[in-house]
Amino acid sequence: MNLDSLLGELRLGLGDAAVLCGDELHGRALADWSGIAAAAPSALLQPSSPEGVSLALRLCERHGQRVVVSGGLTGLAGGANPQAGEVVLSLSKLTRIEPIDEVGGTIVVQAGVTLQQLHEHVMAFGWSFPLDLGARGSCQLGGNAATNAGGNRVVRFGMMREQVLGLEVALPDGTLLTMLDRVVKNNAGFDLKHLFIGSEGTLGVITRLSLALVPLALSSQTVLCALPSFDAATRLLQRARQRLPGLSSFELMWDNYFQAALDAVGATPPLTGRYPVYALIETLGADEPTSAVGVESLLEACIEDGTVDDAVIAQSLDQAQSLWEIREAIGELLSKFKPHVAFDVSVPLSHMGGFVEAAIADLETRYPDLQHLCFGHLGDCNLHLLSGPCRDDAQMLEIEELIYAAVGRAGGSISAEHGIGVVKRPFLHHSRDEAQIALMGRLKHALDPAGILNAGRVFESFPGAHSV
Amino acid sequence: MNLDSLLGELRLGLGDAAVLCGDELHGRALADWSGIAAAAPSALLQPSSPEGVSLALRLCERHGQRVVVSGGLTGLAGGANPQAGEVVLSLSKLTRIEPIDEVGGTIVVQAGVTLQQLHEHVMAFGWSFPLDLGARGSCQLGGNAATNAGGNRVVRFGMMREQVLGLEVALPDGTLLTMLDRVVKNNAGFDLKHLFIGSEGTLGVITRLSLALVPLALSSQTVLCALPSFDAATRLLQRARQRLPGLSSFELMWDNYFQAALDAVGATPPLTGRYPVYALIETLGADEPTSAVGVESLLEACIEDGTVDDAVIAQSLDQAQSLWEIREAIGELLSKFKPHVAFDVSVPLSHMGGFVEAAIADLETRYPDLQHLCFGHLGDCNLHLLSGPCRDDAQMLEIEELIYAAVGRAGGSISAEHGIGVVKRPFLHHSRDEAQIALMGRLKHALDPAGILNAGRVFESFPGAHSV
Repeated sequence: MNLDSLLGELRLGLGDAAVLCGDELHGRALADWSGIAAAAPSALLQPSSPEGVSLALRLCERHGQRVVVSGGLTGLAGGANPQAGEVVLSLSKLTRIEPIDEVGGTIVVQAGVTLQQLHEHVMAFGWSFPLDLGARGSCQLGGNAATNAGGNRVVRFGMMREQVLGLEVALPDGTLLTMLDRVVKNNAGFDLKHLFIGSEGTLGVITRLSLALVPLALSSQTVLCALPSFDAATRLLQRARQRLPGLSSFELMWDNYFQAALDAVGATPPLTGRYPVYALIETLGADEPTSAVGVESLLEACIEDGTVDDAVIAQSLDQAQSLWEIREAIGELLSKFKPHVAFDVSVPLSHMGGFVEAAIADLETRYPDLQHLCFGHLGDCNLHLLSGPCRDDAQMLEIEELIYAAVGRAGGSISAEHGIGVVKRPFLHHSRDEAQIALMGRLKHALDPAGILNAGRVFESFPGAHSV
Repeated sequence: MNLDSLLGELRLGLGDAAVLCGDELHGRALADWSGIAAAAPSALLQPSSPEGVSLALRLCERHGQRVVVSGGLTGLAGGANPQAGEVVLSLSKLTRIEPIDEVGGTIVVQAGVTLQQLHEHVMAFGWSFPLDLGARGSCQLGGNAATNAGGNRVVRFGMMREQVLGLEVALPDGTLLTMLDRVVKNNAGFDLKHLFIGSEGTLGVITRLSLALVPLALSSQTVLCALPSFDAATRLLQRARQRLPGLSSFELMWDNYFQAALDAVGATPPLTGRYPVYALIETLGADEPTSAVGVESLLEACIEDGTVDDAVIAQSLDQAQSLWEIREAIGELLSKFKPHVAFDVSVPLSHMGGFVEAAIADLETRYPDLQHLCFGHLGDCNLHLLSGPCRDDAQMLEIEELIYAAVGRAGGSISAEHGIGVVKRPFLHHSRDEAQIALMGRLKHALDPAGILNAGRVFESFPGAHSV
C-alpha cells in the first residue's frame, strides 16, 4: 500500500476538496498552543460529516496509515501536533448545531462547533452552557470532550465530562457509535461515552455531542477577599460551599502572583495592604437580593472571626470584570516570563498549603533569578504555578522533574485539566503506576488494534503502529 | 482442575473462616431484592482485605472458576444472584473507614461499608455524603459505585459516579489497581475509574473508594405544589433550577400515583382538590432566612401566572417528612400490587409528558383490571411506573415488552438507575444498538479474557466462560 493509493480512495470517498496535500498545506495552522514544533503531515483531511470521518478512519486503518485528530488547536500538551508520516483529520467542517430542546435544556452539536458559538447560540433561548475557558473563541466542543476541559466553574458544574449526556464516536475501524442520549440518568449497560471523554483522541474520534444546558443565571456576585493564611482560605472555601449554594468559582491567588498580576495589567490595587493569599469568589443564580444577602452574611461572619482580613464586593459588572482581570492576567504573565514552565497540577487540599510553601522555597533557593508565581482553582484542588524566565531547556526540564515528583509524592495529579499529550508523557508515572498505564494500553489495543489513532499521545505506543 | 483443589488453595490463601461451602451456606441470604430465584453457589468467599479479594480472583481465574460479586444484595436486577456453578465473592468483611480528610472533605472507605454507616460517620465531622436512597441501611458503597446508584438528589449532586474521586479495583487476573485519587480535577491519562463505575461488577471488583463529601446543609425547604399540567411542571422545574441554586430534589407524582399513595399510607390530603400532577421540591443549603426567601418568591411568581395552582411549604421537619412519605409510599404500593411490573426508565423531558399519556392510555385499554401508577425524578428525566397486580408471568412480560419498546422509540433508557443485571438483559437492545453492545463485549474480553467475573450480567456472555 502506498500513500498515493490511500489519497486516491480518500478523494473518491470524501471529495477532492476534503483532501489536501503538498503545497495545499502551505501556510495552514497545524500546531497547537504548546509551542512544540509540528512536523509536516502527509495530508490534511477535512470531512464534512460524521460519516465522512468514519470513512476516513476506515480507509486509513486499512492502509495502516497513522492519523492525528485536529480540533481547535488550543491544546497545551502538543497532542494535536502532527508527527512525521501522519495524516491530519480535522473536525473543522463539522459545524452543525441541531435544534435546541428548550423544554429539557439539551442540545446536539457537531464536534467542530466552538465553545463560544455554543454559548451565544443557547443564550438566545434563555439557557447557558456552564463550561468556560480562555480559549472559548477557538476551542471546539469535540476537543473539549476529548480532553475533558475544565475552567473556572468546575466547583459548581464539574468538568466537561459532567456536561456531556451523550456522544457520537467514530472508532478507528470506521464503526460509528451513535450514543446521543438526552437523559441525565442512564444505567443501560456500560456508559461507553466515559471511555472517550478525556482519552485525548486515542480511542476514537468524537463527531457529535449531546450536551446538558443550565438555565441562564439571573444574577452574579463577585467578591475579592484578602486572607491571613492558606488555612484560612480552606476554611472560607468550606463555609462558602456550605452557605452559598450558588458558589460557582473559588479562585486563590498567592501574594507573589497577585502583585505580579496587578503590575502586568496596570491595575489599581482593589484592597489596601498586602496579604498572604487572596480569594476571588463568584456566585451565580437566584435573584439579586437573595444572593446578595447570602454573600454579605457570609463575609460578615468571616471578618468577625478573622477568617477574612478584608474584602471588596463588586458593585457593578465593570467592577466584577476588573477583579477577574487580576486572575486572568496569567495571559500577560505567560508572555512576560518567556521561556517559562507552566504547571497545571492537582494536589489534595489538605496537602496544598504545605506543598506550595515547600515548592516555592525550594524553587527560590535553586533558581533565585526566576519568578515563581502561584494561583489556582482552590475549589477543585487545581494549582497553577509559573516559573520563568528560564535559562534553557535543560533548566526547564529540571524544574519540571522537581515539581512533578513532588506532586506525585503529595498524591496529586501531574495534569489537572490540560491533559498529557506528548509534553507530559515522560512524567505520567508520577501520577499513574505501571498497572494503570498497562491497562490504558490494553484499552488502546482493544479499540485501536492497528495503533493508527493519535499514536504516542498520552503513553508510549505499542509496537505494530506505523505509518505508510 | 477441580473445585476441591481450588477451595484448598483459597483456604490456604484466605484462611479457613473466609471460605464457606456445603452446609455452611445454609440459611445465608444470597439473593438480591429482585425476587428472582438464586441457585446454590459452589462456595462463598469472604476475604477481609483488598489483597484477599485480589488473591481470590487470581486463584479463581487460574482454575477457570466463575465468580459472582456480592455486596449488600439490595439490587433489583438480579445481577448479584448466584447462578449454578458460581462462587460468591462477598465484600461484607471489607468494612474499614479510613480517617476523614476534614480540610478537603474526602474520605477513603472499603467497599463493604454501608451507605448509612458513611452518612453517620461523616456527619459527626460536619460533612455529608449526598447520595441517598431507600436501601441505605443495607446497600454497600462498592455496590453503589458498581451500579452507579441514583436516588432523589441527583438533580443537584449527580449520581454515585459524580461522588467518586478514585477507586481501588481488583481485576479478574488479580491485579490490584490502586487509583485512590483525592482531587476533583485529574486529567493524567485515561480516567480508568469510569470503566468500573456502572459496569455492574463485570470488569473488576471495587475494593476501596475515595469519595467527595459536601459540607452539611444548614437548612432545608420542602414544598408540595399542585400543578395544572405536565407542561406546567417542566416550566416550574426550569424556573426552580434558575432561581433556587440549592434545589436538591424535584419529584413529580401523577394524580393516580398521588391518590393511591395517600390511601396506602393513610395520610390526610395536604392540599384540597385534585390536580393532574404534583411536584415535591426540596432545597438544601444556605441559612434558613436566605433559602426561605428564595422559595417563597418563586412560588408567588408561579401562582400568579398559573404555573402552580396551589402549594404547601413545610413549616417543620415533621411536616416535611409527612410530605416525603407520600412520595416514598412506593414501598407500600409495591407490596400491595404484587405481582407487579415496576419500571425504572428515563425519557427525555420534552417527550415525557406525551410518553406517559400514551403509555397510560395504552395500558388502561389493554389491562383495565390493573392499576398503572406513575411518578418520577423529573429533574433527572427518570420515570417510575408501576403496573399491577398482574395475572401471570406472561402478562408481566407483555407489559415489559410494550413499555421498553416505547421507551426505545422515545430515545430513552430502559434503566435509569437500577441497572441491567439479568432481569433487563433481554431488553437492552431498546436502548443500546448492536455496535454499542459489541463494544461492551470487547471491553469485557480485554479485562476478563477468561470470562469468569459476573458472566452473563448486563449482556450475553461470550463463549469461553465456564464453571469448574
